[in-house]
Amino acid sequence: MATNSKTLQEMAEIILKDRSIDEVRDALEPNCHDAYKRFPNGNECDTQAISKRWQHIDGVTSPENIYDGEDLQVYKSNIENCIGTVKIPVGIAGPLRVNGTFAKGDYLLPLATTEAALIASYHRGAVVISKAGGCSAILMSEGVTRSPGFAFKTISDMISFSHWILMHREKFYEVAEGTSNHGRLQDIRFAAEGNHLYLLCDFTTGDAAGQNMVTIATQAICEYIIQNTPITPEYWFVEANASGDKKATAQSFMTVRGKKVSVEVIIPEKLIQRFLHTTTERMVDYWRMSALGGVMTGSIGVQGHYANCLAAMFIACGQDAACVAEAAVGITRFEKREDNSLYATATLPNMIVGTVGGGTKLPSQQSALQIMQLAGNGNSKAFAEVCAGAALAGEISIIGSLAAGDFTRAHHDLARQR
Amino acid sequence: MATNSKTLQEMAEIILKDRSIDEVRDALEPNCHDAYKRFPNGNECDTQAISKRWQHIDGVTSPENIYDGEDLQVYKSNIENCIGTVKIPVGIAGPLRVNGTFAKGDYLLPLATTEAALIASYHRGAVVISKAGGCSAILMSEGVTRSPGFAFKTISDMISFSHWILMHREKFYEVAEGTSNHGRLQDIRFAAEGNHLYLLCDFTTGDAAGQNMVTIATQAICEYIIQNTPITPEYWFVEANASGDKKATAQSFMTVRGKKVSVEVIIPEKLIQRFLHTTTERMVDYWRMSALGGVMTGSIGVQGHYANCLAAMFIACGQDAACVAEAAVGITRFEKREDNSLYATATLPNMIVGTVGGGTKLPSQQSALQIMQLAGNGNSKAFAEVCAGAALAGEISIIGSLAAGDFTRAHHDLARQR
Amino acid sequence: MATNSKTLQEMAEIILKDRSIDEVRDALEPNCHDAYKRFPNGNECDTQAISKRWQHIDGVTSPENIYDGEDLQVYKSNIENCIGTVKIPVGIAGPLRVNGTFAKGDYLLPLATTEAALIASYHRGAVVISKAGGCSAILMSEGVTRSPGFAFKTISDMISFSHWILMHREKFYEVAEGTSNHGRLQDIRFAAEGNHLYLLCDFTTGDAAGQNMVTIATQAICEYIIQNTPITPEYWFVEANASGDKKATAQSFMTVRGKKVSVEVIIPEKLIQRFLHTTTERMVDYWRMSALGGVMTGSIGVQGHYANCLAAMFIACGQDAACVAEAAVGITRFEKREDNSLYATATLPNMIVGTVGGGTKLPSQQSALQIMQLAGNGNSKAFAEVCAGAALAGEISIIGSLAAGDFTRAHHDLARQR
Amino acid sequence: MATNSKTLQEMAEIILKDRSIDEVRDALEPNCHDAYKRFPNGNECDTQAISKRWQHIDGVTSPENIYDGEDLQVYKSNIENCIGTVKIPVGIAGPLRVNGTFAKGDYLLPLATTEAALIASYHRGAVVISKAGGCSAILMSEGVTRSPGFAFKTISDMISFSHWILMHREKFYEVAEGTSNHGRLQDIRFAAEGNHLYLLCDFTTGDAAGQNMVTIATQAICEYIIQNTPITPEYWFVEANASGDKKATAQSFMTVRGKKVSVEVIIPEKLIQRFLHTTTERMVDYWRMSALGGVMTGSIGVQGHYANCLAAMFIACGQDAACVAEAAVGITRFEKREDNSLYATATLPNMIVGTVGGGTKLPSQQSALQIMQLAGNGNSKAFAEVCAGAALAGEISIIGSLAAGDFTRAHHDLARQR
Repeated sequence: MATNSKTLQEMAEIILKDRSIDEVRDALEPNCHDAYKRFPNGNECDTQAISKRWQHIDGVTSPENIYDGEDLQVYKSNIENCIGTVKIPVGIAGPLRVNGTFAKGDYLLPLATTEAALIASYHRGAVVISKAGGCSAILMSEGVTRSPGFAFKTISDMISFSHWILMHREKFYEVAEGTSNHGRLQDIRFAAEGNHLYLLCDFTTGDAAGQNMVTIATQAICEYIIQNTPITPEYWFVEANASGDKKATAQSFMTVRGKKVSVEVIIPEKLIQRFLHTTTERMVDYWRMSALGGVMTGSIGVQGHYANCLAAMFIACGQDAACVAEAAVGITRFEKREDNSLYATATLPNMIVGTVGGGTKLPSQQSALQIMQLAGNGNSKAFAEVCAGAALAGEISIIGSLAAGDFTRAHHDLARQR
Repeated sequence: MATNSKTLQEMAEIILKDRSIDEVRDALEPNCHDAYKRFPNGNECDTQAISKRWQHIDGVTSPENIYDGEDLQVYKSNIENCIGTVKIPVGIAGPLRVNGTFAKGDYLLPLATTEAALIASYHRGAVVISKAGGCSAILMSEGVTRSPGFAFKTISDMISFSHWILMHREKFYEVAEGTSNHGRLQDIRFAAEGNHLYLLCDFTTGDAAGQNMVTIATQAICEYIIQNTPITPEYWFVEANASGDKKATAQSFMTVRGKKVSVEVIIPEKLIQRFLHTTTERMVDYWRMSALGGVMTGSIGVQGHYANCLAAMFIACGQDAACVAEAAVGITRFEKREDNSLYATATLPNMIVGTVGGGTKLPSQQSALQIMQLAGNGNSKAFAEVCAGAALAGEISIIGSLAAGDFTRAHHDLARQR
Repeated sequence: MATNSKTLQEMAEIILKDRSIDEVRDALEPNCHDAYKRFPNGNECDTQAISKRWQHIDGVTSPENIYDGEDLQVYKSNIENCIGTVKIPVGIAGPLRVNGTFAKGDYLLPLATTEAALIASYHRGAVVISKAGGCSAILMSEGVTRSPGFAFKTISDMISFSHWILMHREKFYEVAEGTSNHGRLQDIRFAAEGNHLYLLCDFTTGDAAGQNMVTIATQAICEYIIQNTPITPEYWFVEANASGDKKATAQSFMTVRGKKVSVEVIIPEKLIQRFLHTTTERMVDYWRMSALGGVMTGSIGVQGHYANCLAAMFIACGQDAACVAEAAVGITRFEKREDNSLYATATLPNMIVGTVGGGTKLPSQQSALQIMQLAGNGNSKAFAEVCAGAALAGEISIIGSLAAGDFTRAHHDLARQR
Repeated sequence: MATNSKTLQEMAEIILKDRSIDEVRDALEPNCHDAYKRFPNGNECDTQAISKRWQHIDGVTSPENIYDGEDLQVYKSNIENCIGTVKIPVGIAGPLRVNGTFAKGDYLLPLATTEAALIASYHRGAVVISKAGGCSAILMSEGVTRSPGFAFKTISDMISFSHWILMHREKFYEVAEGTSNHGRLQDIRFAAEGNHLYLLCDFTTGDAAGQNMVTIATQAICEYIIQNTPITPEYWFVEANASGDKKATAQSFMTVRGKKVSVEVIIPEKLIQRFLHTTTERMVDYWRMSALGGVMTGSIGVQGHYANCLAAMFIACGQDAACVAEAAVGITRFEKREDNSLYATATLPNMIVGTVGGGTKLPSQQSALQIMQLAGNGNSKAFAEVCAGAALAGEISIIGSLAAGDFTRAHHDLARQR
């Protein structure tokens, strides 16, 4: 997070325009004098509750853009202090043909975004893949982790505690299953650091993304441990930040978080030329240079912009959009085959998605899942495969336009000149 | 992305339930036989265009949840193939008192989310901070990078080319400024790897997030170079994946991407006890253990869940939600002061935000910015400071509940039992 | 690997002093004209062979510093093209009292280094730990990995191959054991990326560091696979760079490479004051700031300078010094206890060490192991615990001097002013 | 650092063989009862001092392997508590033809190692490169950083302090130059995290590796600051672990630590076939798979085994061997050219090397530098270029043997069967 002296100098000039450093210091001072008026708490989403909340809000020229008097009780279990809804435009790319272990067919991709050119790009990629026969997709593994942490006086206590857990771990499966119909404990891993122990509790979570499910199951396991172990920790927490929740981590990338899917497609060069206006060789040149660009900048994995489609699909389909932080990692690879066709593959190990739970039941989100025929139970594996296919479509399209040299123009035209 | 043999065995059993490995192979085969029907392209957002698109969509029980016949021309420049909008419920946390270099006052935080308990948690954190006099916030640096890549026959050519650029770089400032009123080239950095050269073109972008602006300016610089340099690269790309666009990278974390803001607050222990039901010491214990949890899992920076508030504010306020991938990194630090108060700070170096451009002008998004009094020109710096303050509020609240042991219950109650 | 334009300008001036860029280009040209005289190959280490080699060497004023006519046949199995020996001074720190699961007693630490102040610093740390009753040390896990890679036409082939391996993996244990008396296959992990499969073959290796042992066993497993599987890879390699050999990796850090040891000590503040001239509080302040220094710079783990003692002990004791690259990672943590004592702990997960094999049998190296009473079979676990204890001693001493403000003076005095 | 339950179970069985968990706990207890006998301190290296030290050492069968009564006063400024020397066999690879900006000619490579096959492999690589006309090498940038850290009550104080430094930074150049004839301050970068400020003081250090030089200069700068600034930090340290000293970090990899050198060679396929018994295509296949192997395991950069040659050359040539931890990072890249020749390049950004200072003046180390004609002033840039060339030679040779499938056999034969 370093800034060189020349750049800092320029920043200082911006901050100190029209004021002294002491005035800046004054601005930063805590202010306990002015009255503070807290926004009222509440889960209710009826018209009255929402209207009341708007009385605490000033300066909005067209509040009806957020709230137009409609009944919003349907959102009640998904939000607090609700004042209405934001509307995100949603467009369709594809369909994308997916030949997967769970997904099978041509999937329309609902993408919610406010960024021009995004859907056009994914659409192009989806068409190219589909024209080539579709992408093969395979779910390689799945799992969601919670990581309670336990602190002890000494390493000696920590290993006694670990040993106790090791000896009693069979019981935990039962305890975990008592909390959920869908969550299933897979294994407990032990990550010891000095006198600290982090347990990595790995679960499968059925068709839900499952973060709450694994929290509740882990809480139950921890409480069982605390009530039964002869070694009491100094303190413990149900989550000690080793689960990879809401962040990109090397650990999740190297194992799995949610679902790990690999997709691939082989595209004849004539399709590359026709749709992408470039050659297989140049796309592979791009891949090589961009993969090392990722390495040189310390990304986790190497890929282009999985985040674009994941954010757009997550928002459209009622997923937890904050999970883009962890899901948007993986490896894209392009190779030239002997017949000049392009072999393109993407592997996304951290797709924490679900087709039940979370926001999936909300009205427009449920409709978006229905567009893909993937709403409800039994569909999360296929949904993950389709998401991965969409990510690959985006990689192919953007690399195509960068290789062809028309990336800037495409963005320029679509964003500025309409 | 490794899976041990026991876990893979279980996965294999799931995949091979009711079918053989050859049947799985068949499912993965490219399918060029079935007809493929492409979704029609188009930027129009009038009723007719949208209705026509719906004729290509099947199986949606209540399409009116996405499109109810309203005029959507306002979205025309932000999306393609539009079929309507998804509605994300938005709630208010706070207000959050911010004493910043640019932000000043009590800011209501509009958060769009479908995850129960999220707003309640940020609300609590915002109240605690505000009761303590608010958070101090400072914008430390800003900049957005594009990274064109140039490939040469030999290192020798690469250094001649680099040298030419070095000698002519003054001209680039002019070229860049010709493309934009707001973008300003700051510096060009050179990242050579063998016979490859990546240029890191660093810009400021006024009050816009600015990714398109820097693309266009960089394209102009590259074209100027190509037209004028005596050394022709074998090939080149306007972006070679070294800019950190749409991904968490060590490089962006260590420099800046968008805006870097530090915030801090000092909270008396009595507020900790009253609002968070725990002690300063236990919160600091949590911080220590969770910071090392981040280290042990290879996160970029160490923090808890910046992604939650960034995703929710980005969606509400017309930011590019895919940028959660890069923005949700930084460092949270908690310390106990001699008087038992809690010193809490958060530093977010990659907040790529704007108050003009992108989705900020769309109806509900503009309204959300107005709720904060931060719509339009002159507000992006303050907006970044408020976002960082919100991130800190979330860290304080969630660490409070983990330290107090009521994290699970809070989620359980809010999500399951309403 | 980026350089800003000002710095590059300065570099260009250095390179272009007294010459043009074209002259630099000329200097870089391949030279196939001048005759090339290859140094003669050979494993022999007798006087005649070595003397003959010296005839190919010019310009050494005192060749006897490297070779003085002695018999060097003892080195024959450890080197090729031998011309003598380099002498590295070795000093003793400690002894270090270790209360370990395998190490027990007061260990003199033989450290080979040419860096002034290093041994003095470790000596001080070892004395402080020992005066506090010694460090507790526990071997947490062990294992060495080889990672063959297999490439296929399609993901479909890759999963068939994986499935075959999964079904036949029991046989591999037998195959592996046929190659070695000491190596034992623990598990095979599968890391799939598109149509590529990396197998992570995890072994224990008795008291040897074991890299050759696992290579030979993995080769046998691979050959067995290739001969028996119905699915032939396009190509394969016995090591595809996913084992962490000779490099720091997040993967090895997060699992184990060689041996993982945690050590801890609790030091009363009066010992801190007496030996380190500082306070527990300031040392903890240092730890906090330096841990985040590590985070801010993207180190793998957070620690100060494990490399110093590991390099010095590895060289002294016949270990593979190149493994410093992977071994010098881990986590150091300092906390203040209620009685103001210092809790200090170090966890080193990648100590790839042995007490048999490699250079351990060479004369001075064997003597160095004897100084610790740790030469030969049955001692590698204890040796790893002692190395980890030495690492902690170094952390305590250097942090002490940084906290006390006498770090610079110590180095200055010992290095410059003798 | 996680271990799954099955593996931990096996570890527990090893630890608990023949003893209970309580007996293990007893073994870990601090021991303040037994007498502790400290090894005597001392810098003297005369016969008497050394002999006296041996009286404190037991159990060494042939102490003469370490100390045979010779005069070791020459080591006096490089070590404490000296008891003799360890002898590391040194062999020659090459010569390696280097066409560099500073290195020019055929360099014999002195490599000190105890690992069989290492020199044979580098030798082969050096011959192949040289036969192809040698490698082109260019020093891209240089610099060594120290990172003092300053802690303040508030961000407000931190920015006042930063501002003061910004305003007075010109003075620091003078202060720094007062401490050294060779060190030169290049820039100061500011890395702020909450109320903490890390200064990154970047220096060039002439022909010395320079760590002590930059410590002393930074100490002087810090003292100047503390004496003159009106804002007193709560505490500060001359090094706050943000310099990358003795560890691999993303920051050093992305900038420079010591010297950054790129080398390249173009090898006709007939040389590949003749010397490496494989094809260009297969070597490029290997590169692609191994580069992604590095990415999948979270290495810093992607390369094979730079550590092998760096450790061996550092030990032979009086470098700080602990710096292998930071130096052994970079990027190797292989490409197939249209004429089937192999383009191979290596970029090493963290080569912290010197030809004066440290251990370079010690007898055998100075001789090793003389073998390369690179002892003393004016040679460090060329030395860095040769080291990088050696690293590339190793990559080519090992990838050749992995691609040809004879890697295992080569190691097996050289290590086991002599």
